[in-house]
Amino acid sequence: MKRQSLPGFAAPSIDRADHVRTDPAAIARAFAHPEAARLVLRGLDPVLWGDMLEREPLPAGARMDDYVLLGLEGAEAPLFVQLSADIPHGVTQSQGVWDAADVLRAEELALYGGARSLLDWHARHGFCAVCGTPTVPAKAGWSRHCGQCGAEHFPRVDPVTIMLAECEGEILLGRQHRWPQGRYSALAGFIEPGETVEGAVARELFEEAGVVATDVRYVMSQPWPFPSSLMIACIAQVPDKRLKLDATEIEDAFWIDAAGVRTAFEGSPDARFLFPREMTVAHHLLLHWLTEQEA
Amino acid sequence: MKRQSLPGFAAPSIDRADHVRTDPAAIARAFAHPEAARLVLRGLDPVLWGDMLEREPLPAGARMDDYVLLGLEGAEAPLFVQLSADIPHGVTQSQGVWDAADVLRAEELALYGGARSLLDWHARHGFCAVCGTPTVPAKAGWSRHCGQCGAEHFPRVDPVTIMLAECEGEILLGRQHRWPQGRYSALAGFIEPGETVEGAVARELFEEAGVVATDVRYVMSQPWPFPSSLMIACIAQVPDKRLKLDATEIEDAFWIDAAGVRTAFEGSPDARFLFPREMTVAHHLLLHWLTEQEA
Repeated sequence: MKRQSLPGFAAPSIDRADHVRTDPAAIARAFAHPEAARLVLRGLDPVLWGDMLEREPLPAGARMDDYVLLGLEGAEAPLFVQLSADIPHGVTQSQGVWDAADVLRAEELALYGGARSLLDWHARHGFCAVCGTPTVPAKAGWSRHCGQCGAEHFPRVDPVTIMLAECEGEILLGRQHRWPQGRYSALAGFIEPGETVEGAVARELFEEAGVVATDVRYVMSQPWPFPSSLMIACIAQVPDKRLKLDATEIEDAFWIDAAGVRTAFEGSPDARFLFPREMTVAHHLLLHWLTEQEA
Repeated sequence: MKRQSLPGFAAPSIDRADHVRTDPAAIARAFAHPEAARLVLRGLDPVLWGDMLEREPLPAGARMDDYVLLGLEGAEAPLFVQLSADIPHGVTQSQGVWDAADVLRAEELALYGGARSLLDWHARHGFCAVCGTPTVPAKAGWSRHCGQCGAEHFPRVDPVTIMLAECEGEILLGRQHRWPQGRYSALAGFIEPGETVEGAVARELFEEAGVVATDVRYVMSQPWPFPSSLMIACIAQVPDKRLKLDATEIEDAFWIDAAGVRTAFEGSPDARFLFPREMTVAHHLLLHWLTEQEA
């Protein structure tokens, strides 16, 4: 298995070529470029070519309005992905993505993640939220325009906090009802309007586990394309370990020390929990904490 | 002038009472509570009562579907804000908010910010983006439901990076064309689908100023309710100071040392730039950096 220092989807990838998106002539040139290519997908799932995403030339008769310009690669060759109306409603994750994540180069997985979020957003935002009229893609697929009321709509990125509460050398792990047996991870929740990152961490810990955070520090971030989260991973100091779990959100939770986390990371049969998958930010947040403890 | 350690809108404020939102009976009890109150607004602007937001009892005949439950305060008194169809299209900021921000207690300003983002979101999301049908508020105003296709829509929070590039004891400040004369600040830009916080910081610095970030560290965050940004403030190490400005985004930029930043913070007539307003996260990011340099 590959060892990466960044979570899945988080590696730097393509030159996004932001300056092209607002210039219709530059978009047309990119679309007509002799080396212009598109990603090959199966529904929303990636198609691989070794440890890369498969690419193919743009087909004859392709229309720019059906594509998103992902960016420029190599010697400025434009890379596109085709919009699709066939994306299943409510799809979140799939085995195809998990399998691909174990094989793809980090930068290719990140490229796929961004493309997937955009495709999902277009598929679920065909109408203007302001006035209900059908919208059309604009800015090389980086916005949608309403011809009726003039509104411009941009892809969503939904910030989510994911956090370890820490107290006296132990951290808090929990599990949701629907998770595979034995899996425990960091608690998490969406950041709401009017909240800071730190405020959202404190609120989630109190709501879900009844613990009071006195200090919150940022550790790392990860784009999570199911469909468009930005995971913001933090460690929160908690002075009192007593738990009061929200039974609707959390099935079980426990405090565990570094030795216990290490045992789970090593996949020991004695481990108290199944360690989160390597592509998740929870995996890397736990490793970050473990490294701090063992330093 | 008040001195706050947090930027505007960022202080912890109300108990958001998340558990009430998913429980129709609890929502009804809150709406019928004898001490239930609503914020008084003038359009989207706050109305003050000393250093507080003005509150008033819910009027006779009020309907829950016209309100958002902001949370519980004091002895669990529910606080609401009324949805309005009269919110002007495309409103961003106003003098009323700047004036109020100088007077309001920090937690009241934060309460207002969250309420404002929600009102703006409802006003601009009356239709289902999936199918174009009018939607109705749900979950005490924390989502909108489409009766046609069943989609549930949640308020947007748009993560934005705002950053100081740092090189050899100096930081990079820039200004946009439309800013008041003399104002310079940290560069900033929206985080896109598929990006980490750190990746977005590096991309913005390269796009807008042509500098390459080699390390990015998180400093603080702030909700910015015009209409619903989450500002994520960072400092990025840059090894090479040579600038290549994006003339469409940046009118001018310069490197400045701690003494120059201090002069501007003190409002000296010799200052090279007008320091950002205290309610902004840029103000607090600059002070954070200055404190580090002077430690």
